[in-house]
Amino acid sequence: MPRYQGQSGSPGIAIGPVFVYHSQQVTISEHSADDPISEWRHLQHALQQAHTQLIALEERARKIAGEEEAVIFAAHRLFLADEELLATLRTMVLREHRNAKAAVYKAFEQYAEALSNLEDEYFRSRAQDVRDVAHRVLRCLQGSEKEEKAGEIVEPIIVVAEDLTPSDTIQFDRDKILAIVTSRGGPTSHAVILARAMGIPAVVSVPLELSDIRNGTLAIVNGNSGLFNVGPTLHELEIARKEKELIDSRYQFVLSQATLPAVTKDGSFHPEIVANIGGVEDAKSAIDFGAEGVGLFRTEFLYLQRNNVPTLAEQVRAYQDVLKVMGNRPVVVRTLDIGGDKEFPYLGTQKEPNPFLGWRGIRTIRERPDILEQQFIALLTAVAQTSTSGTGSDLRIMLPMVSSLAEVARAREIFEEAQTCVRAQGLPLPDKIQFGIMVEVPAAALLADRFAPLVDFFSIGTNDLTQYTLAVDRTNERVSVLASPYHPAVLHLIDKTIRAAHTAGKWVGLCGELAGDPLAVPLLLGLHLDEFSMAPSFIPIIKDIIRQWSLPAAEAVAQQCLQFSLAADVIEYLKQQQPH
Amino acid sequence: MPRYQGQSGSPGIAIGPVFVYHSQQVTISEHSADDPISEWRHLQHALQQAHTQLIALEERARKIAGEEEAVIFAAHRLFLADEELLATLRTMVLREHRNAKAAVYKAFEQYAEALSNLEDEYFRSRAQDVRDVAHRVLRCLQGSEKEEKAGEIVEPIIVVAEDLTPSDTIQFDRDKILAIVTSRGGPTSHAVILARAMGIPAVVSVPLELSDIRNGTLAIVNGNSGLFNVGPTLHELEIARKEKELIDSRYQFVLSQATLPAVTKDGSFHPEIVANIGGVEDAKSAIDFGAEGVGLFRTEFLYLQRNNVPTLAEQVRAYQDVLKVMGNRPVVVRTLDIGGDKEFPYLGTQKEPNPFLGWRGIRTIRERPDILEQQFIALLTAVAQTSTSGTGSDLRIMLPMVSSLAEVARAREIFEEAQTCVRAQGLPLPDKIQFGIMVEVPAAALLADRFAPLVDFFSIGTNDLTQYTLAVDRTNERVSVLASPYHPAVLHLIDKTIRAAHTAGKWVGLCGELAGDPLAVPLLLGLHLDEFSMAPSFIPIIKDIIRQWSLPAAEAVAQQCLQFSLAADVIEYLKQQQPH
Repeated sequence: MPRYQGQSGSPGIAIGPVFVYHSQQVTISEHSADDPISEWRHLQHALQQAHTQLIALEERARKIAGEEEAVIFAAHRLFLADEELLATLRTMVLREHRNAKAAVYKAFEQYAEALSNLEDEYFRSRAQDVRDVAHRVLRCLQGSEKEEKAGEIVEPIIVVAEDLTPSDTIQFDRDKILAIVTSRGGPTSHAVILARAMGIPAVVSVPLELSDIRNGTLAIVNGNSGLFNVGPTLHELEIARKEKELIDSRYQFVLSQATLPAVTKDGSFHPEIVANIGGVEDAKSAIDFGAEGVGLFRTEFLYLQRNNVPTLAEQVRAYQDVLKVMGNRPVVVRTLDIGGDKEFPYLGTQKEPNPFLGWRGIRTIRERPDILEQQFIALLTAVAQTSTSGTGSDLRIMLPMVSSLAEVARAREIFEEAQTCVRAQGLPLPDKIQFGIMVEVPAAALLADRFAPLVDFFSIGTNDLTQYTLAVDRTNERVSVLASPYHPAVLHLIDKTIRAAHTAGKWVGLCGELAGDPLAVPLLLGLHLDEFSMAPSFIPIIKDIIRQWSLPAAEAVAQQCLQFSLAADVIEYLKQQQPH
Repeated sequence: MPRYQGQSGSPGIAIGPVFVYHSQQVTISEHSADDPISEWRHLQHALQQAHTQLIALEERARKIAGEEEAVIFAAHRLFLADEELLATLRTMVLREHRNAKAAVYKAFEQYAEALSNLEDEYFRSRAQDVRDVAHRVLRCLQGSEKEEKAGEIVEPIIVVAEDLTPSDTIQFDRDKILAIVTSRGGPTSHAVILARAMGIPAVVSVPLELSDIRNGTLAIVNGNSGLFNVGPTLHELEIARKEKELIDSRYQFVLSQATLPAVTKDGSFHPEIVANIGGVEDAKSAIDFGAEGVGLFRTEFLYLQRNNVPTLAEQVRAYQDVLKVMGNRPVVVRTLDIGGDKEFPYLGTQKEPNPFLGWRGIRTIRERPDILEQQFIALLTAVAQTSTSGTGSDLRIMLPMVSSLAEVARAREIFEEAQTCVRAQGLPLPDKIQFGIMVEVPAAALLADRFAPLVDFFSIGTNDLTQYTLAVDRTNERVSVLASPYHPAVLHLIDKTIRAAHTAGKWVGLCGELAGDPLAVPLLLGLHLDEFSMAPSFIPIIKDIIRQWSLPAAEAVAQQCLQFSLAADVIEYLKQQQPH
């Protein structure tokens, strides 16, 4: 019987019958509305109804998952109140006389598309949320008053679906759902985050066809290894049962230790464990999962679905919200990394033949220094105003896609000017705001010794670094199998970057998926990585693994990894290592 | 007055008035042909007429440029006889009842598009040839019996144009054309190659708007530095006049020495100077310009504009043609590097969001090992049959886009099988056929010490290596300024690759544009590059510069280059170096 290898979504092991789940479909036809005024009222009623449903879901999430998971649905409510979105809907219905369903579908889909087109996988996962909200509003328009239910589930089952929305997931009855398996979706989607919080094992990106799966077949889901075994042998079942007992008790312990520091067993090394976030909801979630700060604050959300650059006031507010939540913990903010995308005409982006090799990140500085300057001023204003409220923020600035020293020098100049400008307004700035760069272009890693004196820190973006070092688009399914961050060429660049930084007395973080991968812990510890930055929910398990290793043992593992020539050999070797 | 910096196309200095040149336009309307049979006869007549014109141009090229330049127009004639193209035209006119003009435009444009979509700039330049032929046929259809003339030129002028076709260029009267300046086009276009052969200085890719240039303005064109100075000062004119005298006498001398070897002044180093070619015409041209072999034989031409994989017999013939011309000189054949392009459905290519990071080169080996195997068998058959005719070919095989050792191992296996298969047919193979890889993905350079034991040689593809190391699409005008092969990160990878190969006793070539750049000569000599491979017409000048340097002096230059942190500093330093 088939054994499918997917990606780990939520840890734990489950054994039970499979059930193939299809979301309820909504039909949309586009036609001209005879009476736009009543159509608009109808839509407003549906929006109100969706709002009420989301408040109930938020409450349910708070009860069965946690505070940080409840925020997911609060964020969904925010989409319903988005002024740009409402303005678009109003134009479509009242001015263009479209029917409400078509308007909702079109307006939300535009937003979801804009998110999907961003290079960062984090935003592609958020597109799923937008579509979830749209679907909810469409159901309300259709008159489906009741919340959609996950089929008529009577016995505990393993749900197998193409993809799941957060709404699908939160509806599941914990006692009836043993595990979740999806053929699409990534480990950072909100549905997976919910599953993790609800303690439901999940495996995602499983290369299967739903039509190949027969309801009722017995299966094993291993949320730790990503294995989905349909129709296992008796022997495999026996092993899975024993493993499940061990893991279940372990995970409870790990969660209970989440907010404690992660010091190696020998007490000699204490890396910082921080979070990748996209806004204030993530920041709250990060604190709950034990983050000691933010290693990557993606600022692209602010620039989405608009017709103009966000105002200074809007930016200041968004940054302040995060700074306040994080208190005096470090917050590394990545400046805008948008480009290669047709959806941002006001930023001057254009359609490009190879957007990953195009006009993005710090490269926009030559044509549009104003955007970066405005962002610097907003960040400095936010930190100045937050500091006066007494919390003493530790803001740090980070530039994306750096490939030349000239880019850093130019950005520094603009940063100095922004500081002068903010100080001139009488706002008090902290003595020191750290200034760093992403190391994600191979050239930056290769010249790390030249870059180190110019910055306070590096943050290695292993996702992009892997793409460029191996010349593989990891979102292209046809070649993505080649794009392993465990490729020895990538490991050599990570090693080179850390050594160059330490020689210059600077620190190094890592904010790619590798930082949240349990397998990579001894390797990265052994290379003396100072800061691990990851999706909040990965933090407890990574902290736990760090505590199990001594630094000398990790160093030996790292040195051995650098000797291999194939990614597969590195992975095989790491799988065999036991903490000591 | 404006000074424009373009790329050097053809060496030499010219001083004179500018003249803005626009190609004659042809109007094309698409309509249904009332009488398809007479439309088809009309088209056949036009094709015949174009053929006659091309024979005359070939003769003119032979007289005023040279044998190898005449081949350009012989190649144009071959397009007119292309069976696939004629079949397409026949279908369009006789079956679909299109008018002849629309059919010609559409059929040739399809071909040109297919060429333009290839990643290798060499092929994009060839698209210009196809459009040139199409334009000729269209003019014949229109009844313009006479060959198009480059305006009414009465006094010697500097021609400024958006782009020029080979037909435009060969029509120019050498005595009336002082120099050529184009805002588009690359240094490997046939128009530029013709200019070089005709001794007309040329500067290409000049960032100017034709509408900004006023006819009659005095200007200086420096084909060596790529500078186009419109409205120079008296002092600048004086300097240019002196430089021109020196250069004119020098270039004649350089051409006369083209076929002699290129040994450094101190006699201690003798790199091989070889050519990049795309077919048998280029091979002939290479010999004339003094190539000691072929460092890069691009095999993509064979696969273009077809509905199926070329037959073994077609491939064998194409490879034999080149092997025969090259005699016992080494011929490095790059296996098929197609991908990321919608025009090759029979190869299984698909439209990809980032084709440069997609399914191309050796990556096709997992899905389509048959294509590589067939190419190996064709190459081995060609060399076996050519060897028996007594010339003793030195065939060498090279894999593109290698990023993993596993790819080399797999390709080697297929190569061994192909050898067994050819030997089984009783064909005698040479004792040794060298097997190498392109080093164009950063991972290959970073792991050069691991790859070296598995191969006989490396060939560094600096164009792609630069793109990936700096994460810049060099065909994207918005960011291409960042993509300098002089970036110290790229230089470090070149250095690392050469040192790793030499430690393992293997040789290293370089077939990117850097190899044909006069500025790079001391740098590459000093890094001990064993083989320089370039467009044939660059060979005489590169050989000449090599002869002026001693190895120790070049080594000092190379070491200094590795110390810089910015590409601009490297370039500035190299410009100041005098051979010694």
